Amino acid sequence: MGRVTVRRPVVRLREGVASTRPDTLAAEEPMEIRVGGRSLAVTMRTPGDDFDLAIGFLVSEGVVRAAEEVVSARYCAGATVDDGNTYNLVDVALADGVAPPDPSVERAFYTTSSCGVCGKASLDAVRTASSWSVTDDPLRLTPDLLATLPDRLRAGQRVFERTGGLHAAALFDSAGELLVLREDVGRHNAVDKVVGHALREGWLPLRGTVLMVSGRASFELVQKAVMAGIPAMAAVSAPSSLAVDLAEEQGLTLVGFLRGGSMNLYAGADRVVV
Amino acid sequence: MGRVTVRRPVVRLREGVASTRPDTLAAEEPMEIRVGGRSLAVTMRTPGDDFDLAIGFLVSEGVVRAAEEVVSARYCAGATVDDGNTYNLVDVALADGVAPPDPSVERAFYTTSSCGVCGKASLDAVRTASSWSVTDDPLRLTPDLLATLPDRLRAGQRVFERTGGLHAAALFDSAGELLVLREDVGRHNAVDKVVGHALREGWLPLRGTVLMVSGRASFELVQKAVMAGIPAMAAVSAPSSLAVDLAEEQGLTLVGFLRGGSMNLYAGADRVVV
Repeated sequence: MGRVTVRRPVVRLREGVASTRPDTLAAEEPMEIRVGGRSLAVTMRTPGDDFDLAIGFLVSEGVVRAAEEVVSARYCAGATVDDGNTYNLVDVALADGVAPPDPSVERAFYTTSSCGVCGKASLDAVRTASSWSVTDDPLRLTPDLLATLPDRLRAGQRVFERTGGLHAAALFDSAGELLVLREDVGRHNAVDKVVGHALREGWLPLRGTVLMVSGRASFELVQKAVMAGIPAMAAVSAPSSLAVDLAEEQGLTLVGFLRGGSMNLYAGADRVVV
Repeated sequence: MGRVTVRRPVVRLREGVASTRPDTLAAEEPMEIRVGGRSLAVTMRTPGDDFDLAIGFLVSEGVVRAAEEVVSARYCAGATVDDGNTYNLVDVALADGVAPPDPSVERAFYTTSSCGVCGKASLDAVRTASSWSVTDDPLRLTPDLLATLPDRLRAGQRVFERTGGLHAAALFDSAGELLVLREDVGRHNAVDKVVGHALREGWLPLRGTVLMVSGRASFELVQKAVMAGIPAMAAVSAPSSLAVDLAEEQGLTLVGFLRGGSMNLYAGADRVVV
């Protein structure tokens, strides 16, 4: 089974002086997600919490929304010609009556809108697929509480400490208690791992929580928050236009540039009590 | 046609004081890439240089490697029910005799290896698909020249200046001259836009060049460099394990943590003359 970090020799150059030493790198390996034996997606991820990654991905895609809709997740033997197991192929079995996903690339875009491929169609697709509304979530946050989250995200990043090379996502409750934190070379994977863990714990919808992410807030990450019923998301860096549009339409509170006590509120500012 | 930036109102909190003002965000919109009318991929991207994005993506996938293999790239009408054009759907027509891509999700992983889904299979897939070797590229770089690249990347980022929210990729020649720079919400898109431009200019294979990227060096970005014949890549942040493995196997020089004159050489260190 894959490791989270890998050691490699590296030549360091500091002020013109070269030295060779071992360095710790974040591991990256492909993982294929299958549903009922049918291939759905391949993602490059950091090994670890692979079942949560697969299940969280299915939450984001609108396939499952409760623990009982997943019968099992397992590593497949038979991934290689000699019937070996690379621990990079996860097959999820859905409960009876749960519709399997459509594996076509157009699935997210053509189901709901007359507008074809565009931002509006992307928003429509999330609205149609979403099981919960976060609009009425009574969560309230203070700037002081939000200001503590980036440091606590960083403090929880054990692998980043050693490699400087991972994204992270963490879920906090309204009192600022850390519920779960995951790291990955891909930030979408880190969020999927958080959401997959939450589903298995029976926490969905994740009312009254804040999702803190390293890096930027893209449409895809806001989509994942909405699909898990998370009412607030905070990012260290900037959001994109479509991330803000989706947050506004869905009633999600979106905080960006959360650094050193200052922050920008891009949507759902009424949840932040100044 | 989509814009590169979008204005939105934002509530700023600075030391407990709230103020509302307009903010500039990086635009994000979905784009579908078709080849000969057949859907291949949907990517969330910043509008602009869309044909280069589509063509660069096809270079990365091993579908094309020279300008004459692409007959045309165009925005499709017919993307909507009323036959409208969202400028988010690009169809690429290949020249006679150029094999169209396999749109299945397994395409990158099962073609070449007996190992199934694993890092080694990913390396094998790139080796098989790659048209050029960068091993014998005579490029030589000095630490002084490399040290100038991050500032010059940042200086060229016109949209980042205004939004704080985009990734960038830039191609330099061996004298440190900037050849082309592109920004995008997705760093893989920024690289595809650079490579697509290079193909249309007849520059492939990109011998004697360095690709500088904001952020981390993932397997996917090294793969894109290899597929375009680029012999060296430099990143502001950390590489992943598989990125280093691929760089080593393909003879690509991989520089990480390139900041303030210091850097780590993860592969191909012999091209850097200390």
